[in-house]
Amino acid sequence: MTLQKPGLLVLKIGGNILDDPAQLTACLKQFAAADMAKVLVHGGGKIATAIGNKLGLKPNYIHGRRITDAATLEVVTMVYGGLINKQLVAALQALHTNAIGLTGADGNLIIATKRPVAEIDYGYVGDVAPTGVNAATLSILLQNNLVPVVAPLTHDGNGNFLNTNADTIATEIACALTEFFCVQLVYGFEKNGVLLNVDDDQSIVPYIDSPGYAELKSSGKIFAGMLPKIDNAMAASKRGVQKVVIGHALSLCNILQNTAGTSVTYG
Amino acid sequence: MTLQKPGLLVLKIGGNILDDPAQLTACLKQFAAADMAKVLVHGGGKIATAIGNKLGLKPNYIHGRRITDAATLEVVTMVYGGLINKQLVAALQALHTNAIGLTGADGNLIIATKRPVAEIDYGYVGDVAPTGVNAATLSILLQNNLVPVVAPLTHDGNGNFLNTNADTIATEIACALTEFFCVQLVYGFEKNGVLLNVDDDQSIVPYIDSPGYAELKSSGKIFAGMLPKIDNAMAASKRGVQKVVIGHALSLCNILQNTAGTSVTYG
Repeated sequence: MTLQKPGLLVLKIGGNILDDPAQLTACLKQFAAADMAKVLVHGGGKIATAIGNKLGLKPNYIHGRRITDAATLEVVTMVYGGLINKQLVAALQALHTNAIGLTGADGNLIIATKRPVAEIDYGYVGDVAPTGVNAATLSILLQNNLVPVVAPLTHDGNGNFLNTNADTIATEIACALTEFFCVQLVYGFEKNGVLLNVDDDQSIVPYIDSPGYAELKSSGKIFAGMLPKIDNAMAASKRGVQKVVIGHALSLCNILQNTAGTSVTYG
Repeated sequence: MTLQKPGLLVLKIGGNILDDPAQLTACLKQFAAADMAKVLVHGGGKIATAIGNKLGLKPNYIHGRRITDAATLEVVTMVYGGLINKQLVAALQALHTNAIGLTGADGNLIIATKRPVAEIDYGYVGDVAPTGVNAATLSILLQNNLVPVVAPLTHDGNGNFLNTNADTIATEIACALTEFFCVQLVYGFEKNGVLLNVDDDQSIVPYIDSPGYAELKSSGKIFAGMLPKIDNAMAASKRGVQKVVIGHALSLCNILQNTAGTSVTYG
């Protein structure tokens, strides 16, 4: 007899939803209502930039890529790890969800290495190895009915935070937790899924497998900005996440019932 | 046979030590070296005021008391719950201490009620009832060798943070954990203990009990600013904290060996 692992939802929400209080509340209500172990991973949002500007920070770009310098790192630690993370936690507590806000340093949750300097020095940006997530500690929290809310910050183990993409963090957490759980990973954003026509919200691709992805890519039909998200989703499916969906953050209930979003399967 | 409860240290550190990187590192090293279950509670520091000023916040005082308005609350959530708390966590991780940073909302750790408006409306300031600390959740973290690092922020359960004095938070956490642990509570600050002469660092009162405290108060010898701290310490001793010491944050090792600070005992 094989014991079925308990179900777990990893939901990632991004900047657009964080910047809209009404949408955020609607999304958190659906997340709170999902009756299973769960983890929320959040991105940044305009507020980090707005606070950075007020503090006199000049956004630093090289070849169009944002650089995380020391001053920026301090602001994102404060805004992602403090303001956004804690406000999500307090809002979930009000919805009777026992949220606990974490960065990668808390409980040594996510170790990363500073991205090596090649053509561009991205500054304090961290890459996470597949062994970087401390699934055992996350699992202890989850077993005690706590709901981790994870900010897009990792640490290097030597006292330094690193800025890490929230999609990457959601992917790595989902993959690491397959050891203990049957994991569903939802990348929630402001579109209904992967769209064939970025201007048509109804042109959703309901299902993408590896050959289908190759075809979509070669056809040039998908918006280029979606490719890293689909790559993350494919990697998660390949590494044992049972269900991976890209969809609208406000469609979580329907996504969990398999009636919304783009389902991504490796193979 | 009575089973001995395991030992636990609750250390509170305040603004002065937080504002001095070299002293802070020295203090954290001693804390990291204390070989027992432990909790660190931290206060604010000048950085919150500095960031508030940069963000255009005008400190709001009524009758000399600082008022926590909505904008100030947002800054302290960000700075206490994000910047200071997370930097302490990352620094402790580098010292091989498995710190986990928390506010009162995380894990529903500390419920407070907004201070009722009487003569003064203090704004978003929270008072903690003796039942306000969630000792069960703290205990789960401690049993798993995690070291809670607690910011001076509570929540009301309805989605709002409240600003709460760090001495009060340390006191309430220490008292609540007496259910599971044999607790030592150390209020670490920039003086060697309770001083008979505030200008003489060596004029330490090594021991204060209730009659001694009454005598000291009536003599007018103690600096008035110390009274709330001694009141907190007395309350903790009365409520079952086994050892309560007020002393220099850099003397933690000596305090734990009973060779520094002012020991406070109710009765």
